[in-house]
Amino acid sequence: MNFDDIKIRIKAFVKEELVPLEPWILNCSWDEKLPKLNEKRQKVKDRGLWLPQIPKEYGGLGLSNTQHGEISEILGASPYGHYCFNCQAPDAGNMEILIEFGTKDQKEAYLYPLLAGDIRSCFAMTEPDFAGSNPVNMGTMAFKKDGNYIINGHKWFTTGFDGATFAIVMLVTNPEASEPHKKASQIIVPTNNTGIDFIRNIPVMGHTGNGWESHSEIKFQNVKVPLTNVLGGDGEGFTIAQKRLGPGRIHHCMRWMGICERSFDLMCQRAVSRELAHSKTLADKQTVQNWIAESRAEINAARLLIQDAAHKIDSQGAYKTRKEISIIKFYCANVLQKVVDRAIQVHGALGLTDDTILAFYYRQERAARIYDGADEVHMSSLARQILKEYRI
Amino acid sequence: MNFDDIKIRIKAFVKEELVPLEPWILNCSWDEKLPKLNEKRQKVKDRGLWLPQIPKEYGGLGLSNTQHGEISEILGASPYGHYCFNCQAPDAGNMEILIEFGTKDQKEAYLYPLLAGDIRSCFAMTEPDFAGSNPVNMGTMAFKKDGNYIINGHKWFTTGFDGATFAIVMLVTNPEASEPHKKASQIIVPTNNTGIDFIRNIPVMGHTGNGWESHSEIKFQNVKVPLTNVLGGDGEGFTIAQKRLGPGRIHHCMRWMGICERSFDLMCQRAVSRELAHSKTLADKQTVQNWIAESRAEINAARLLIQDAAHKIDSQGAYKTRKEISIIKFYCANVLQKVVDRAIQVHGALGLTDDTILAFYYRQERAARIYDGADEVHMSSLARQILKEYRI
Amino acid sequence: MNFDDIKIRIKAFVKEELVPLEPWILNCSWDEKLPKLNEKRQKVKDRGLWLPQIPKEYGGLGLSNTQHGEISEILGASPYGHYCFNCQAPDAGNMEILIEFGTKDQKEAYLYPLLAGDIRSCFAMTEPDFAGSNPVNMGTMAFKKDGNYIINGHKWFTTGFDGATFAIVMLVTNPEASEPHKKASQIIVPTNNTGIDFIRNIPVMGHTGNGWESHSEIKFQNVKVPLTNVLGGDGEGFTIAQKRLGPGRIHHCMRWMGICERSFDLMCQRAVSRELAHSKTLADKQTVQNWIAESRAEINAARLLIQDAAHKIDSQGAYKTRKEISIIKFYCANVLQKVVDRAIQVHGALGLTDDTILAFYYRQERAARIYDGADEVHMSSLARQILKEYRI
Amino acid sequence: MNFDDIKIRIKAFVKEELVPLEPWILNCSWDEKLPKLNEKRQKVKDRGLWLPQIPKEYGGLGLSNTQHGEISEILGASPYGHYCFNCQAPDAGNMEILIEFGTKDQKEAYLYPLLAGDIRSCFAMTEPDFAGSNPVNMGTMAFKKDGNYIINGHKWFTTGFDGATFAIVMLVTNPEASEPHKKASQIIVPTNNTGIDFIRNIPVMGHTGNGWESHSEIKFQNVKVPLTNVLGGDGEGFTIAQKRLGPGRIHHCMRWMGICERSFDLMCQRAVSRELAHSKTLADKQTVQNWIAESRAEINAARLLIQDAAHKIDSQGAYKTRKEISIIKFYCANVLQKVVDRAIQVHGALGLTDDTILAFYYRQERAARIYDGADEVHMSSLARQILKEYRI
Repeated sequence: MNFDDIKIRIKAFVKEELVPLEPWILNCSWDEKLPKLNEKRQKVKDRGLWLPQIPKEYGGLGLSNTQHGEISEILGASPYGHYCFNCQAPDAGNMEILIEFGTKDQKEAYLYPLLAGDIRSCFAMTEPDFAGSNPVNMGTMAFKKDGNYIINGHKWFTTGFDGATFAIVMLVTNPEASEPHKKASQIIVPTNNTGIDFIRNIPVMGHTGNGWESHSEIKFQNVKVPLTNVLGGDGEGFTIAQKRLGPGRIHHCMRWMGICERSFDLMCQRAVSRELAHSKTLADKQTVQNWIAESRAEINAARLLIQDAAHKIDSQGAYKTRKEISIIKFYCANVLQKVVDRAIQVHGALGLTDDTILAFYYRQERAARIYDGADEVHMSSLARQILKEYRI
Repeated sequence: MNFDDIKIRIKAFVKEELVPLEPWILNCSWDEKLPKLNEKRQKVKDRGLWLPQIPKEYGGLGLSNTQHGEISEILGASPYGHYCFNCQAPDAGNMEILIEFGTKDQKEAYLYPLLAGDIRSCFAMTEPDFAGSNPVNMGTMAFKKDGNYIINGHKWFTTGFDGATFAIVMLVTNPEASEPHKKASQIIVPTNNTGIDFIRNIPVMGHTGNGWESHSEIKFQNVKVPLTNVLGGDGEGFTIAQKRLGPGRIHHCMRWMGICERSFDLMCQRAVSRELAHSKTLADKQTVQNWIAESRAEINAARLLIQDAAHKIDSQGAYKTRKEISIIKFYCANVLQKVVDRAIQVHGALGLTDDTILAFYYRQERAARIYDGADEVHMSSLARQILKEYRI
Repeated sequence: MNFDDIKIRIKAFVKEELVPLEPWILNCSWDEKLPKLNEKRQKVKDRGLWLPQIPKEYGGLGLSNTQHGEISEILGASPYGHYCFNCQAPDAGNMEILIEFGTKDQKEAYLYPLLAGDIRSCFAMTEPDFAGSNPVNMGTMAFKKDGNYIINGHKWFTTGFDGATFAIVMLVTNPEASEPHKKASQIIVPTNNTGIDFIRNIPVMGHTGNGWESHSEIKFQNVKVPLTNVLGGDGEGFTIAQKRLGPGRIHHCMRWMGICERSFDLMCQRAVSRELAHSKTLADKQTVQNWIAESRAEINAARLLIQDAAHKIDSQGAYKTRKEISIIKFYCANVLQKVVDRAIQVHGALGLTDDTILAFYYRQERAARIYDGADEVHMSSLARQILKEYRI
Repeated sequence: MNFDDIKIRIKAFVKEELVPLEPWILNCSWDEKLPKLNEKRQKVKDRGLWLPQIPKEYGGLGLSNTQHGEISEILGASPYGHYCFNCQAPDAGNMEILIEFGTKDQKEAYLYPLLAGDIRSCFAMTEPDFAGSNPVNMGTMAFKKDGNYIINGHKWFTTGFDGATFAIVMLVTNPEASEPHKKASQIIVPTNNTGIDFIRNIPVMGHTGNGWESHSEIKFQNVKVPLTNVLGGDGEGFTIAQKRLGPGRIHHCMRWMGICERSFDLMCQRAVSRELAHSKTLADKQTVQNWIAESRAEINAARLLIQDAAHKIDSQGAYKTRKEISIIKFYCANVLQKVVDRAIQVHGALGLTDDTILAFYYRQERAARIYDGADEVHMSSLARQILKEYRI
C-alpha cells in the first residue's frame, strides 16, 4: 500500500465511519462511546491502517513526519480520528519515548500493550503552582532510597490519567545539578501505585469528562517506584521532552489544519445555503467573502509552514528546527481560532448550538494557544534565537 | 434612597450575596439553583431594590436609562444579578412592552404577576429558517378567524420558554400590507395553549440547560388566541420591537461592562500573583501589560459610548439614537470578547477550567456578537445611515 | 462672545479661509506660504479669536482644557489651523511654561513677543543617542560657572528650531541628584548664541522642510547662558515637563480628531461618488461600510476618552489624570492611523496622490505613535500604574 | 553558470553595488541618478546577469517563474535592483507580451530595443474615472478608420510614461462585443504621436518624480496608429492582460519579500543596538520580540505561499493558479505593510527620517494594497471562486 493509497483509505474511513457518529458522539460520556470506538479501532486494524506514525518494526506504517502530518490533518476532521488509529496524544508521544529510550523490560511492560491498544497511558508534566512554560521549573521531586524513587508532588492537566495504566511523570531528581537542564527525569509510574491521590478530573469549559477525555489533578505522596523505571537515564528528562515536542507539534498543528478545513467547509456550505432577503445568500455578502478569503489564505499559509517544518525535522532533526517549530505553534493556533470563530459567525445562532461541531471546536480548541507552551512563550523564544544572530 | 445609595447597596449585594455562590451556581441545574435565587430575590425586595428599571407607579425604582445602565454594569458582575433584581432579559423587555402597550386586561393578567416575580415570560422572535436580522422577514403567521388569531410557525432561541407562563410572539398578521413595517404584530400567547409543540431546549455550547437558562425550539400548529391578545394593535409589531431594542441594548451593553470589569480584575490579580522564575510575575511581562492597557482603554471607551447613547435616549428618544445604539452593539461586543479572551490567556491552563468564571464567560458571551442583530448587520446599517447624509 | 459663538466662528474660518489654500499650501515651502499665513493670522486677531488657549490676562480667550480641546479638533481640519490662531506646538507649550514658571524678565523677553506672534520658539528635548521615553535619561548637560550655565549636548527633532528666536532646552544640571527626577532643568537659550551648531533639518518622510515645518538636529558646544535663564528653578525640568504634557496631549489628541473627521468625511464623499459597474458605488460595498462603521465608532470613542481626560484635568489636575492621558495617547494615535489608512484605501490610486490631503496625513501623522512617548511606553506605564493597585 | 551561482552573484551585486548608493539615490531626481544606473546596468551585462527573466533565445537567463521569484526577492533589497537587471515593471511585462504576442515587425521595432535597455516603455491601463479593478470597464476607446485605430481617452498612473518610447494601451475596440471579455484590445502607441496630451506627472506621497519614477496622467485625442499595432489580435486585450498578471504578481510579491527581509534586518539590528536604561536594549522588550516573531512567521508564510503559486504557474499555467495568485496579492501586501510599520516603530523617531530606507518604503509601498487590483477585489474574487464549488 503506497502513501497515496493510505491517504485515500484513511480519508474514506474518517468520512464514512467517524463523521457520521456526530453529533451523538460529541454529547455522550466516554464510557458510552468507548464500545463504539473500539469497534472502529478493530476496523482500522483490519484495514491495515493501525499506527500510521510508528516504525514498521514496531507494527506501524512507518510514515515520516511529513507524511504523518498529512495523515494527522485527515484524522483531525473528527475529534476521534487519532484515537481510532492509535496515534492520539498523549499515548503517541509516550510510544515515541518508549521506542527511543525504553529498556527491553520497559517495552515489554508498557510499550507493546500500548501499541496494541490494550492499555492507555498519560504524561504528567504541568503543575498548578508553576508556570508551565519552563520544564525545569517544577515542584514535583523524587529522591532515591533503597533502589527506589520516592516521589512527591502535585500535577494537573494530566490528560487521560483517568483509566490509564501508567503515567510518564516529569519531575526533578537532581535539584542540585550544575546544569539546569540536567535536573529533571522522566519516570514511569503505574497509576495504581500506593500514594497517588486522584483529586479530580478538572472541569474544563463546562465539562468534566472522564477516561481519555479528561484532565486530572493528582498528588504524589511518597509514591515508590524502582529506579529502573527511569526513562533514558536519570537527568535526561529535559532532553527527552525536547525530542518529543518537535514531531508532536507537527502532528498537533496538522490536526488543527483538519479542524480548520472542516470549519472552512461548514462556513462555505452555510454561506451558499443560508438565504437572505431578495434571493441573496450569505455568500453574496462581502464580509463573508472576506472571511472566506482570509481563512483560505491563512490555512494555506499555516499548512505550508508546518510542511516546511516537517521536512526540516525529517532532514535535519528537531533541534535545528526549533525556530520553525515555535513559528507553527503560535501561528497555527491563531489561524485555528480565527477560522473557527468566523465559521461560527457565519452560522449565526446555529453556530452557538451543538447542532454543528463548531461550538465544540470553539470550546475545545481555545486550549491550543496555551498548551505545549503558550504562544507568548514561543514568540519570545523565537525572537531571542533570531536576535542572538544579530549580536556581535 | 438616592441613586448613589442604591448603587452602593446593589454593589454590596452582588459582592456579598451573589459572587460567593460561585462556582457552585455555575455548575448546577436551574432547578437546583432556583430555591437559592428565590431566597435572594426576597432579600432584594426586603431591601427595597426590586425592579430598578421600572417606573415608580409600577413598583420599581424609576431609574432613567442612564442610571439603570450603571446598575446593569454592577449586576453584570454576577450571571444572576439581573435575575435577582427582576430586570433580566427577556422579562424586563416584556414588562416594558406591557407597560407601554398593554391594555388594562393584559396588564392584570400578565404584567403584574411578572413584576411580582411570580411568573416568567419569553419573547419568541428568532426563526431557524429566516435570517434573524430582519424583523419583517419571517415565516410565523397568524390569520384571523372568528375573533381569534390562528398561529402557525417555527421559532427557536426562545429564551426561557421552558417554565414561562406566556410568550410574546412576533409574527406576520398582514402579509399583504403595503408598508413592509406594518406586516408584523406582537401577540401574547399562553404557553400552555393547545398546538404549541415544544421540540427541545437547544444544546448551546455544550449545555442544554433548562428553565430560565434555556433556549427553546417550538412550533405553533393552529394555536388559537383571542384577537385581544395583540399588543398595541395589529400591525404594530415592528414599531414595538424598535422601541424595545434601544433601552434593552443599553442594559445589555452595560451588563457586558460588568463582565469586562470582573474579567479585568481577575486578569490583574492573576498577573500580580502568578510567579515566574527569577522572582518575576506575569505583571512584569510587557505582553501582559499591553493586554491590561488595551483592555483598560477599550473598556473605558465602551462605557463612555454606552453612556453617551443612554443620555441621548433619555433626552431625545431611541429613534434619534439609532446610530449610537448600533455603535455600542458591535463595539462593545468586540471589547467583551477581547477582554475575556485576554483574561483567559493570562490565566493559562487555569483560564480553561471552571475554577474561575472566565471559561463560562468565554462560552456564554460568544453569543454577544450574534444576538440582537449580528455585528455585521449593525455595521452595515450604521454605515448606510451615515452615507445617506452624504448623498446629494 | 460665548463659547458656542467662538466655535461657530472658528469653524467658519477654517472652512472658508484655510481649507481652500489646499493643495497649494501642502506643496510649497515655508517661505512661500508664510506671507499668506501671516495675512490669515491678522484676520484671526481682527476677529478676536487669537490665542484661544491663553488666559484672558495674557490676551487670550481663556478657554478651559475641555473647551480648547474642542477648538483643537476644529483647527485640526487644516494643517495650519493651530498656527493661524497661535496655538501651535511647540510655541503653545512654551507659552504655558513661561506663564506658569517664567520670571518677570523672562516673560518680557520671551513670552510677550511669542503671544504677539512676533517670534517663534522651539523645545529641545529628544536626543538621537538616548531613548526618548525617559526624560531623565539624556546626554545634554550644563554645568555652572561664573553665573552661567555652560551647555554641551546633542539634540534632534527640535521642531521649528529653524527660524526660532529661542529654545527651551531640557538638560541635566544635577547629574548627582539623589532623586532622579531632580536631575533635569529647562533653560531658555537664544538660538543665535555662540556654540549652537545647526547640523541640519532632518529629512522626514521624504521632506526636509524649513521654518516651522522642520525638525532640526543641533549640537551645543560650550553654549553659555546666564543662570537666570533657568525656568522654575534648577532641577525643576522634569516637574515642568510633566505639567506641560497633560494639557498638551489633550490638544494634540483633539487635533487628531480633526484629522480623523476630515478623513472620514473624504472617505464618505468618495464612497457615495465613486461609481462601479451596474450603477453601484463604493458605498454599496460591505467592506467600505464596515470601514465607515468602525471608523465612526472609533472616532466617537476616542473623542469621548479625550473629553473625559480633559474634564478630569480641569477638575483634578494633570497628575491625577496620568492614566487617562496615557490611554488617549496610544488609543487615539491608533484610531488616527486606522482612519487615515481606510480613507486612502477607499480612494484607491487617488488616495496615494497629493490631489487629496490624505497622503499628506498618512506621511505626516505616522509620527503620532512615536512622539510624546511611544505608544508602547504609555501602555507599559499605564499597566504598571493599574497593577500597583492590585499588589498587596 | 548554474542557478545557485546566479543567485550568489546577484546577491553580491545588490549588496556591493546598489545598497551603498543609499541614501543618496533615494533623495535625488531621476535625471541625476540615471548615469549611475546606466553604469550599473553595464556591469550587470558584463557579468552575464542581464535579463534573468527572459528566455535564452531572446538573450536572457531563461529562469522559471519559481527561480525568477527568488531573484526578485534578492533584487528587491534595493529599489533599483530590478531596473539594473532590466526586469523592472512595467518594461518586463511589456517584454513578455511582445515575446508571446508580438509580430515580427513589432518585435523588431519595440522588443529588441527594450531587451537591450536602449529604450523604456509603459503600460496605460488605469483610468481616473473608472474603478480600476475591472479591465473591461473603461472609457478609452478606439474606432477603426482607413487602416488605423483612432484613440480617445484618459489614462493615469501610467508608470514611466515620462521618457518612454512607446506605450501599450489597454482600451475598448469592440464596445458591442457579445462577450464582455472580447471588448478590449492592447495597442502599441508611440509616445511621440500627435494627439497624446501629457497632463502631468501625478504627485504621489509628496513627490512628483520624473522618468521611470513617475506616474503620468495623459489624454488621447484622436491619436492615430495603424491597425497592425494591435497585439495578439483585436479583442484579445483582456486575454493578454490575464496572462501577463500571473507571473508579474509572483515577481512583485517576491520583490516585496526583499523589502520585508531588509526591513526585518534593520529592525533586528536596531533592537540589539538601541540602548535603554539599566543596560537593556530594545531587544529585551517583549513587545519588540513579539513584532520580530510575528514578522518572521508572516514573512516565511508569505514566501511559501508565493513559491507555491510559482510552482503551480510553472507546472499548470497562470489560469489554474488564479486562486493562489489572488491569495498572494492580498496576503503579501498586508505582510509588507505590517513589517515595514513595525520596523519603523522599533526605530522610533529615526524610523521617520530618511536616514534609513524605512520611511521610503512606508510611503512607496502603501500602493501595494491598491495596485494590480485592490486587496478587497482579490478577496471577493477568491471567495467567489471558492464558493462556486459549494453550489450544487
